[in-house]
Amino acid sequence: MAVRIEVLKEDNRTRARLGKLHTPHGVIETPVFMPVGTQATVKTMTPEELKDLGAGIILSNTYHLFLRPGHELIREAGGLHAFMHWDGAILTDSGGFQVFSLGDLRKITEEGVEFRSHLDGSKKFLSPEIATQVQMALGSDIVMAFDECTPYPATRDYAKASLERTTRWLKRCQETLTTTDRQALFGIVQGSMYEDLRKQSAAEITELDLPGYAVGGLSVGEPKELMYEVLDYTVPLLPKDKPRYLMGVGSPDALIEGVMRGIDMFDCVLPTRIARNGTALTRYGKLVVRNAESAHDFSPIDPTCDCYTCKNYSRAYLRHLIKADEILGLRLMTIHNLRFLTNLMSEIRAAIKENRLPEYREKFFYEYGYLK
Amino acid sequence: MAVRIEVLKEDNRTRARLGKLHTPHGVIETPVFMPVGTQATVKTMTPEELKDLGAGIILSNTYHLFLRPGHELIREAGGLHAFMHWDGAILTDSGGFQVFSLGDLRKITEEGVEFRSHLDGSKKFLSPEIATQVQMALGSDIVMAFDECTPYPATRDYAKASLERTTRWLKRCQETLTTTDRQALFGIVQGSMYEDLRKQSAAEITELDLPGYAVGGLSVGEPKELMYEVLDYTVPLLPKDKPRYLMGVGSPDALIEGVMRGIDMFDCVLPTRIARNGTALTRYGKLVVRNAESAHDFSPIDPTCDCYTCKNYSRAYLRHLIKADEILGLRLMTIHNLRFLTNLMSEIRAAIKENRLPEYREKFFYEYGYLK
Repeated sequence: MAVRIEVLKEDNRTRARLGKLHTPHGVIETPVFMPVGTQATVKTMTPEELKDLGAGIILSNTYHLFLRPGHELIREAGGLHAFMHWDGAILTDSGGFQVFSLGDLRKITEEGVEFRSHLDGSKKFLSPEIATQVQMALGSDIVMAFDECTPYPATRDYAKASLERTTRWLKRCQETLTTTDRQALFGIVQGSMYEDLRKQSAAEITELDLPGYAVGGLSVGEPKELMYEVLDYTVPLLPKDKPRYLMGVGSPDALIEGVMRGIDMFDCVLPTRIARNGTALTRYGKLVVRNAESAHDFSPIDPTCDCYTCKNYSRAYLRHLIKADEILGLRLMTIHNLRFLTNLMSEIRAAIKENRLPEYREKFFYEYGYLK
Repeated sequence: MAVRIEVLKEDNRTRARLGKLHTPHGVIETPVFMPVGTQATVKTMTPEELKDLGAGIILSNTYHLFLRPGHELIREAGGLHAFMHWDGAILTDSGGFQVFSLGDLRKITEEGVEFRSHLDGSKKFLSPEIATQVQMALGSDIVMAFDECTPYPATRDYAKASLERTTRWLKRCQETLTTTDRQALFGIVQGSMYEDLRKQSAAEITELDLPGYAVGGLSVGEPKELMYEVLDYTVPLLPKDKPRYLMGVGSPDALIEGVMRGIDMFDCVLPTRIARNGTALTRYGKLVVRNAESAHDFSPIDPTCDCYTCKNYSRAYLRHLIKADEILGLRLMTIHNLRFLTNLMSEIRAAIKENRLPEYREKFFYEYGYLK
């Protein structure tokens, strides 16, 4: 099996797990946050900078790479790792989320999804087979199943039909993936916010004995409390000896809450996107660096942060760069926000190890301002 | 004297000089190309990356920093070096070039220039005194005189009146600069393309015994042969024991030709600007990486180049980044073009040292394609 999780410890007061994710491109400590590199680059960052921040696995997007530069070009380059000069692990999504959300004029059949490229309007088609073949060309370590991320809210009927198609499509993905010695297929539990449907979905996909499972269809606009409730009853349905990935979640509170519910892996574009808009994550909450309060503030974003940005630059300088549309500003903000998250995950792992995760959560939430 | 040049060798077949420029922020080998950091950042680059490329001195712009974030803010930050985290040397221009070219609705009097900010249209005023005071707040190692860069073409009458005002303004700059222990004022020879006016200007400004001199009013649209001709008769008018700076010149041919005419320092935005547009400088000429020929080319920009970009990335990947508007593409292209120039200057210095500059020029021009 290309990818496996070694569970080192289970917390006795929460469902949190401490582990090591073994992949063909390195061993990653879990729980882990995966930075997103949509177009074969984590925006603004070099691979070396990602490594320096402590990132060992990144996510990249099948939909975007399928359209540009095309998976055949990346295959020709020797795969995505070689193409983008990243020797850490890569998880690729299946494109399902994007064809359902970005693709215009989509036509869904049992066979797959016809859609128009957001780049040039040309007609394209993705199916479980094609999405898997694309990911085989990319050579990612973890291949996500081609699914429908059921929108929120969804009627029970829609959610049931959608999850059942996701299961049928998953089987076709599994049949297509012939490179299981070096690529691991993760199935995705759907079922919207219906407990019985989540149970049905989990039962159907775990039956396929895949190397890993994701919880999909969350963080799609529902209240956070509802997401936590779904995780409460869904995660225990997944096998303990397989990695569990919560898709599209990366806010500090949801990372901690997700870990406490047994999640090992997370991804989200938000931390890097808000960085580029001039907002920094700090342990005392968000700091909008572009605001006037930072104009004459010659202190770093966070004096306790060990990132390159905080060690060398003031809020005043960062604000100047952001207001002047300077690329260095985007770089420095991204470095800080990613370091904030790798550091948060590292603190979470230490807290699990030392049996103090609930106390860590309480202190973090208090300082961050979530309890106000 | 804050800045001085130590001339190590004079070429015996050309006017080229090998030297060391001593500044309060390090010793720089000359001839040198100075990357441009207009808004207190060399676009896309960190200071550490600049150092790694071999850059020891950069240029920054008074006009832009005066308008945003304002020189008082930078003074408050401890000066430009501290503000932007650069401990190498900095040369600041005077803003003269920009108020005459970027500033809308300018009004020129003997006192100075009233103009409208290109940012918000507000009325601003720069004079020799103010431009110098701004540069004192910035704390640059080399302070350029507030001059008029005479446009091309100019009538003899205009050019004469302009250079004479530049001389009068230079005296006011000299009287204003009280920090000569740590900041060196460079005067600027004007006179357009008129030999007698260049002589008049050089005589007037060298009389002030300044720590350095620039040749201005070139690379403003005139044919290159004309620029070389002006350098032929102007540079010998400047004292041998002072650094000589040719403003706004950075194309490979003009760097070599300028060095052969006795120039020590150069700056130009072009190499970094074309990098961001997807054009790489190579010893075999310009390579437009965004062109279709690079799509399936998995070789680096230049296999003999030692830069980070060429060591790790293919033309195909760079083209993908550029076409996808990814910031990493701008970074990698900038790194390459700046390294190309620091490397070119290093080769020029070696050629002077080894008495083979004319032969180096011939080989470089042949390979680059200038002789075709």
